[in-house]
Amino acid sequence: MIRSPDNEKLKTIRKLQQKRWRTKLGLFSAEGEDLVEAAPPAEFVLRAGEDVEPDLLNAVSTLASGTRVIGVYRQRWAEPEGDLLVYLHGVEDPGNVGTIIRSAHALADATVVLGPGCADPYSPKAVRASMGSIFAKPPARAELAEIGAHALALDPYAERDLADFDMTAPLVLVLGSERGDIPEGLEAAHIPVHADSLNVAMAATVALYEVERRMRGHA
Amino acid sequence: MIRSPDNEKLKTIRKLQQKRWRTKLGLFSAEGEDLVEAAPPAEFVLRAGEDVEPDLLNAVSTLASGTRVIGVYRQRWAEPEGDLLVYLHGVEDPGNVGTIIRSAHALADATVVLGPGCADPYSPKAVRASMGSIFAKPPARAELAEIGAHALALDPYAERDLADFDMTAPLVLVLGSERGDIPEGLEAAHIPVHADSLNVAMAATVALYEVERRMRGHA
Repeated sequence: MIRSPDNEKLKTIRKLQQKRWRTKLGLFSAEGEDLVEAAPPAEFVLRAGEDVEPDLLNAVSTLASGTRVIGVYRQRWAEPEGDLLVYLHGVEDPGNVGTIIRSAHALADATVVLGPGCADPYSPKAVRASMGSIFAKPPARAELAEIGAHALALDPYAERDLADFDMTAPLVLVLGSERGDIPEGLEAAHIPVHADSLNVAMAATVALYEVERRMRGHA
Repeated sequence: MIRSPDNEKLKTIRKLQQKRWRTKLGLFSAEGEDLVEAAPPAEFVLRAGEDVEPDLLNAVSTLASGTRVIGVYRQRWAEPEGDLLVYLHGVEDPGNVGTIIRSAHALADATVVLGPGCADPYSPKAVRASMGSIFAKPPARAELAEIGAHALALDPYAERDLADFDMTAPLVLVLGSERGDIPEGLEAAHIPVHADSLNVAMAATVALYEVERRMRGHA
């Protein structure tokens, strides 16, 4: 039972709150029973009351309410391959990155590719938002130009409706930053809306549903 | 300039963090420039440095980072009417309630109807998640039996695919609790998924898109 805050495992967990250390060690942490249950074998897992004094675990938790279990895992990165990819350009909010990884997994079993300027998908907030999907569908890192698939950008100002677009695999759905920056020169489509209030994660969710439905052969 | 924490307006804002007081006063608060800009005329607005000392405003903020502006508004409730309604049954997470209000507004200009056991849509977290949509499309409160529209429940275990369902207005989309409770005896459809990872807000977003698309006459 760990009884000292100077324990090496606790120190590692504390370091992993910083992107610099996550990158250097190639590790990340996941908190809570749901996530740890969905995970592959860990580097190590600490459970309150079993492996570590509960107060010491709460002290290294990123949750205001503390946690009963934290696992530390090796980061995995996929290749930017598949019939359907989601490419994110400058999506800076880790909650949005995690939610999009979750949607891409659930709706289309698609890999999310992180372009320049995106939040770290292995940050605590992104991991939490992704739920188990960060484990089931690890993200990829690439520039859009490296991906050999037809690119379709989602742009609220595009003329064409997403539903009128011909969907042929392989396809890469391109989503821009929260501020509206989208790579230029791509074919673009909009999601029909009544009010200008879709954030990037909601737009990704809808687009993944539509593309997947169409690729399955619906009109 | 307000310089005392005992000021009546600051006291009101503090009270409105509790549902009991929100219900009693029929008011709620919204924090941040984006929300206050999207709002109709307020009961009152306090701006840091103009109307109140910044530290005193931060002290009544529900945001960890504090805020520069808080507005207090009268709660508005819509009638459960329209071609498309979203009925929530026991959706307890205020972030999900707010996100669904936002999706319903953006994708279908639809009113969200809160059944028993739902989070208060006027709680600070729900208001924040709804963005301006809580002002543009106020929610309604009703039991499902009071709504005179055909009901379609979203149920991951239903046999029929949502895309195969005949959509005729007026329709009420029924979404169950985060734990999976859904009112019984309703026609039900599922959203096709590759992994069991859609939360209630994502399911609502996808369903609203599909229903609205179909009601506009797409196949």
